[in-house]
Amino acid sequence: MAKQKRGKQSFVPEIPPVITAWASVAGKKESEGPLGHSFDIARTDTYFGQKTWEQAEKRMQQMALDTLVQKAGLSLENLDLVCSGDLLNQCISSSFPLRNTGIPHIGLYGACSTMAESLMLAAMAVGGGYADRVAAMTSSHFASSERQYRFPLGYGGQRTPTAQWTVTGSGAVLVCSEGKGPRIESATVGTVTDLGITDANNMGAAMAPAALATIKAHFDDLHTGPEDYDRIVTGDLGQFGKEMLLALARNEGLNLGGKLEDCGTLIFDRNKQDVHSGGSGCGCSAITLCAEFLPKLRTGKLKKILFCGTGALLSPTSTQQGLPIPGVCHAVCITGGI
Amino acid sequence: MAKQKRGKQSFVPEIPPVITAWASVAGKKESEGPLGHSFDIARTDTYFGQKTWEQAEKRMQQMALDTLVQKAGLSLENLDLVCSGDLLNQCISSSFPLRNTGIPHIGLYGACSTMAESLMLAAMAVGGGYADRVAAMTSSHFASSERQYRFPLGYGGQRTPTAQWTVTGSGAVLVCSEGKGPRIESATVGTVTDLGITDANNMGAAMAPAALATIKAHFDDLHTGPEDYDRIVTGDLGQFGKEMLLALARNEGLNLGGKLEDCGTLIFDRNKQDVHSGGSGCGCSAITLCAEFLPKLRTGKLKKILFCGTGALLSPTSTQQGLPIPGVCHAVCITGGI
Repeated sequence: MAKQKRGKQSFVPEIPPVITAWASVAGKKESEGPLGHSFDIARTDTYFGQKTWEQAEKRMQQMALDTLVQKAGLSLENLDLVCSGDLLNQCISSSFPLRNTGIPHIGLYGACSTMAESLMLAAMAVGGGYADRVAAMTSSHFASSERQYRFPLGYGGQRTPTAQWTVTGSGAVLVCSEGKGPRIESATVGTVTDLGITDANNMGAAMAPAALATIKAHFDDLHTGPEDYDRIVTGDLGQFGKEMLLALARNEGLNLGGKLEDCGTLIFDRNKQDVHSGGSGCGCSAITLCAEFLPKLRTGKLKKILFCGTGALLSPTSTQQGLPIPGVCHAVCITGGI
Repeated sequence: MAKQKRGKQSFVPEIPPVITAWASVAGKKESEGPLGHSFDIARTDTYFGQKTWEQAEKRMQQMALDTLVQKAGLSLENLDLVCSGDLLNQCISSSFPLRNTGIPHIGLYGACSTMAESLMLAAMAVGGGYADRVAAMTSSHFASSERQYRFPLGYGGQRTPTAQWTVTGSGAVLVCSEGKGPRIESATVGTVTDLGITDANNMGAAMAPAALATIKAHFDDLHTGPEDYDRIVTGDLGQFGKEMLLALARNEGLNLGGKLEDCGTLIFDRNKQDVHSGGSGCGCSAITLCAEFLPKLRTGKLKKILFCGTGALLSPTSTQQGLPIPGVCHAVCITGGI
């Protein structure tokens, strides 16, 4: 068996790649939430100085990448690779900011799982000896997502209780072959799970089974259990999906209670911010990881987390054609560093 | 520097991964073209037995994957990983066929460069010791692409001379840590190149500069030149883009004449098939690689090719907002095996 492979879906880099820096850019609503004080950049202008929401999203990724290299004391040309993706059609928020920068780019699509997917690939590239400095990056924008996936904002459609609020934000993480910081100890590649959920306003339900499948696969492959992690962090099931995951896990004799946190429930204050089931979008787990978990891993407040990016692999076309919503979840185990 | 990294954008696996099998599925027009006799599966039914074109595309990927494992004498559960992507919004043709198969999946978006991108990542996963058997896969469908990117087919829009015809097809390639077959010797990750082309009916012009940038980077990083390759295979610039690449290269003192072939010009007979500038779409380079080049590499008829997947990173939204079309090109060097 391949030497860095573990079990069916996981890998363990021989030399764990180091997360030496991270950067987060957040919108207005996010900066008014519980993590508001922790973002590197927060803006009240939904357009980020651009003419359209799609261009605002590109601008956020550009700001996140610039801030990342600045915080790392590097410049863009020091990056060996950027692994990034987003929710917009043809991933334009990810490719446009890299135009003519000369940075090698691998474009990804993993829906809201993309922060974990990009981190996993960055770890693979660094751990495999292909690159020394890789940026993993993603973004989402409430307004560009709403009009692409659901309704134009001006339509004023009623939101269901299970609906989630797409986060306006972008997160970027620098994964290196050496340096100081939290380390990527292992990762588990997700499988596409479909339990027949067809309600496009209930992403949590579509993603929870995928999250459980990957968490179980991770425990099996690495011979670990919930007790080995300080936190199991899903991103982003929302309140409804989180409860569903806890129940599904309990049904299989797995107790995630006390360990499970979900980025979708952390980023907004549901009582005050009218976000229904919580936050969602690639940017949600990206900026929550950067603002809440990586700092705590750096200081040693957290020793080990399993960061589980969850994505709903639907498109408006698949939904209109009556197809169910498959989910995917990629998991990355990050340990506290010095 | 990371031990498998070469130069700025390239990598050279210490043990070259082996391409042990491949499979191609093609539509009616493709099977009537010059490579028609070489596809594993050809169908005259545009719907591939499904109700919609989008579902037909998913069906093609399913058929390609099933054929691939069958030709390799394996079953689906023997695969460690599938790296795949496509052109449809949210890459539904790639994720849906893998539902509930239990195969780990990395979703990609590289527009029409995806066959090279997926091959490159498969080589990275196998060469890095993360996996032993990885399928790289992609697809496109003329009818699903036209209505998503351009106009509904029923509208009967006039096509410009530089327009290309999206190939209906899916290709899958099995990359392994051992076995017999062509080998992946090196790869070059592309950068996002934007020269300000805004004509969405002239993808060749948008992609040619990216192709040149990556080919030059590959030569620089590996200390090689056109004379070291039997063929430099772009996919898919079309006739117009191919001529543009030759001219751009000549301007920089690089003579690609006699070496350059383009999948978009090989797959159709432009004189008989009314495809204007040639073929395009992820499926174009995928099935041309599988039907034309990999068999010749296996028999030793070709010793070494540089397979350069080219993609135009536009979306209908970016075009409607007046933005230019960035291009990307990933290159994979494949040598003849036994």
